[in-house]
Amino acid sequence: MERVPILKIGDVLLVSIQVDLQDQTVLALQEDLAARIVATGAHGVIIDITAVDIVDSFIGRMFATIASMSRLMDAETVVVGMRPAVAITLVELGLSLGGVRTALDLEEGMRLLGTRVAAARPTHPAGTP
Amino acid sequence: MERVPILKIGDVLLVSIQVDLQDQTVLALQEDLAARIVATGAHGVIIDITAVDIVDSFIGRMFATIASMSRLMDAETVVVGMRPAVAITLVELGLSLGGVRTALDLEEGMRLLGTRVAAARPTHPAGTP
Repeated sequence: MERVPILKIGDVLLVSIQVDLQDQTVLALQEDLAARIVATGAHGVIIDITAVDIVDSFIGRMFATIASMSRLMDAETVVVGMRPAVAITLVELGLSLGGVRTALDLEEGMRLLGTRVAAARPTHPAGTP
Repeated sequence: MERVPILKIGDVLLVSIQVDLQDQTVLALQEDLAARIVATGAHGVIIDITAVDIVDSFIGRMFATIASMSRLMDAETVVVGMRPAVAITLVELGLSLGGVRTALDLEEGMRLLGTRVAAARPTHPAGTP
């Protein structure tokens, strides 16, 4: 069984979904995510679905489940990178993802969670003219 | 054909490899990455291989190719999340990844590239006692 890797950036956990999610994979992801939130004390979870072009109601419910679960552990969930076709399908399925915050891309999602990323090469480092 | 999504955090591009890479996918990834470096002016590329448990010489060379290509476009490449078994295989294949920087995880990789991520919830926001 494939496991979706969970990355950590600051105090945000990042899950980038690229594989077709089987029911077992989704259940494993929820468990892994809960364990990582506890282990790292993360305050945010970002689920990136840029690569997802087909959703069904099971996946749709997964977002809501992860969001509710994370909230109980004091972490906020943001779903980022949703394609227009996916948004249309979710609405047609009657899943409006109430309680799940969304953002256009990863950077917007991190901004929503209040995480700031400093540029790798500051043009004018402090102390230099 | 599956395409590996490329995420952007600050001025770093993040590629998280989760699928078994076919030759075509690798070529597409290299093209996409080059295009994104130009489009975003990114100064760093992080390739996360946490989910990769099998490598062959083609994948090994991919890291070196991406690193060389990125360097020509003024972006530094860091490979993060390598499993011990993958490291052993690469050495056995005679691929020591010269010219490719590595780090244990995403956060270490971002630190290596000089990117700082600020905590989502500062305990003492500026201006408050």
